[in-house]
Amino acid sequence: MGILNRLSSRILIGSLAGVTIAAIPIQKVKAEQKLLIPSVQNEKSDVASSYPLSVKMEQLVKDIQREMVSGLEQFEGPDGKKFELDSWKRKEGGYGVSAVLQDGKVFEKAGVNFSVISSPAPKPMLQHMRSRKPMNLDDNKKYNMFVAGVSMVMHPVNPHAPTFHANYRYFELREDGSEESVASWFGGGTDLTPSYLYPEDAMHFHKVIKEACDKHDESYYPKFKKWCDEYFFLTHRGEARGVGGIFFDDLDTDPKKTYHFVYDCAHALVHQYLPIIAKRKDMPYTKAEKEWQQLRRGRYVEFNLVIDRGTKFGLVTPGVRIESVLMSLPLTARWQYMHSPILGSKEDELLQVLRKPREWVK
Amino acid sequence: MGILNRLSSRILIGSLAGVTIAAIPIQKVKAEQKLLIPSVQNEKSDVASSYPLSVKMEQLVKDIQREMVSGLEQFEGPDGKKFELDSWKRKEGGYGVSAVLQDGKVFEKAGVNFSVISSPAPKPMLQHMRSRKPMNLDDNKKYNMFVAGVSMVMHPVNPHAPTFHANYRYFELREDGSEESVASWFGGGTDLTPSYLYPEDAMHFHKVIKEACDKHDESYYPKFKKWCDEYFFLTHRGEARGVGGIFFDDLDTDPKKTYHFVYDCAHALVHQYLPIIAKRKDMPYTKAEKEWQQLRRGRYVEFNLVIDRGTKFGLVTPGVRIESVLMSLPLTARWQYMHSPILGSKEDELLQVLRKPREWVK
Repeated sequence: MGILNRLSSRILIGSLAGVTIAAIPIQKVKAEQKLLIPSVQNEKSDVASSYPLSVKMEQLVKDIQREMVSGLEQFEGPDGKKFELDSWKRKEGGYGVSAVLQDGKVFEKAGVNFSVISSPAPKPMLQHMRSRKPMNLDDNKKYNMFVAGVSMVMHPVNPHAPTFHANYRYFELREDGSEESVASWFGGGTDLTPSYLYPEDAMHFHKVIKEACDKHDESYYPKFKKWCDEYFFLTHRGEARGVGGIFFDDLDTDPKKTYHFVYDCAHALVHQYLPIIAKRKDMPYTKAEKEWQQLRRGRYVEFNLVIDRGTKFGLVTPGVRIESVLMSLPLTARWQYMHSPILGSKEDELLQVLRKPREWVK
Repeated sequence: MGILNRLSSRILIGSLAGVTIAAIPIQKVKAEQKLLIPSVQNEKSDVASSYPLSVKMEQLVKDIQREMVSGLEQFEGPDGKKFELDSWKRKEGGYGVSAVLQDGKVFEKAGVNFSVISSPAPKPMLQHMRSRKPMNLDDNKKYNMFVAGVSMVMHPVNPHAPTFHANYRYFELREDGSEESVASWFGGGTDLTPSYLYPEDAMHFHKVIKEACDKHDESYYPKFKKWCDEYFFLTHRGEARGVGGIFFDDLDTDPKKTYHFVYDCAHALVHQYLPIIAKRKDMPYTKAEKEWQQLRRGRYVEFNLVIDRGTKFGLVTPGVRIESVLMSLPLTARWQYMHSPILGSKEDELLQVLRKPREWVK
């Protein structure tokens, strides 16, 4: 039996509150593509609907996967590569779908996952949460957790087309036997990683995010943009991963307002990224440009394996579904000893921006 | 100014006692290849000579670099790629040479580094050492350290030729103003990472090491072989990195005997590896075999970035010479979602051995 078969009997449950990831045995079920990726958006996720936040968020992560997967597949053309769907179900409560497209015409590797978990909250996880934020929990009581999240990474073939990442998630804690939440928060973000700098792409990307933010709170964009620049930074290289975006965690005040904000951010994703792909995917490129992209992919690997809190936690969690943890890695990457771009070259221009994060919108 | 230029003003001082790595400003000096790689071995490193251990070890690491570099270059042919030598000097005391060959006919990437450091021992390093082993140090006294080490990684082009790694180092602590050592120890090891399993290669590799070990202590090989299997293990994959070798640290009893042991191990390196390269470098291979090698290279990256103590420490050390820390990474690597070799295939055969380390010599 192959190692992947062995591992696929367990599943990674996304990144809870930024760092907490649970490894939970699962049962692999047959994916029903038609049901998973329908063409219309479900009203259950609507901001105006009266469903509880957990139900709305559960629907939202599915809607977003559907939206993104169908949006991306169009680029591959009617006869092109399709997303491969791995659906899974968890006996204790929870399910999800990993959608991965590999070796496509436009995308070298693209993955869009959602997961919905509803189960008892493990004691170590509760302890960890309390160490991060003050919480009014009773040591003698049992708590259930609910988590719904969507995460995605796209690595295009064309070196002029940027890599894209996004993740939005909701966490809720309830006393056992009750439907009332005792604590809940949102986390997430999105960032863009070009190999070649097109300022107009970065500006477009940030503009769409800023609009989604400003609708809800004008302090969000500047705060979350800065948080993103700080988080997606390779200290050992002295470089940002890319041209940034937004990043936030532990948003726990006014859940209804925050859901509305996350809803708008999540639905903005296709608008942030797809127009850029449309513009860049067919640009001519040289072998040297492809090699530079491969070196930048190496940096992406370094970030994900060395710095990313979710990945690091996933890697040390016994029994984790490693294919889901490492889905974000590019198909190919390169490390070249003492590579240094020529001063003033296109490659050097990117490095200048990565060393000194820029404001892309006012 | 390129980032690499900025970074090259500082240098990584190898792996001290397995985990401790110091970042120290250096002055780049012109490498004089003729002096650095002479054709004869220096008698100062001889086991029988009466020089102090520090002098002998300093000479040994240079001898080994010379031996390995000239051995490897022969495979590239008279008109082939040569090692690029980066020589550096440290104002406070210390110097070294990084030798890297990239994009060769036989080697995709090969690096052989030595470093010799002699300087005041930083307080945090002393504290760290004392947390690892009982040491009779006086808080009010100053100590100097001496470190000499050689480390190397070779990634061949041919997927039938294995990747090779080795590292031997000596550490000595002296009271300031004295030439007497108050503590000293040796560490090191060597391991082989094939993409395709040739049991005769693994047997040859282990046989040469075992002979070097047995000459000094028959308990060494079984103990250090096991230590190697345990250390070079990717927990998150449930796989060993390769077919093992030996690994040891903190060998602090009977320094003269241990030097002799390390001397024999270090001089065994060319005999362990070069005959295997000679046998495999020209084997015909398919595109699929090259791809499998690239997937295995991905595992090598995972080990070095996620698990290797020296690399991890280097990455979080401010001002480190990152090109030296990451020299061990392959030129190219690949991650493929849900890749699983066919049962009973050559690729599967390798995985079986990686999951269950084998005894290669009796």
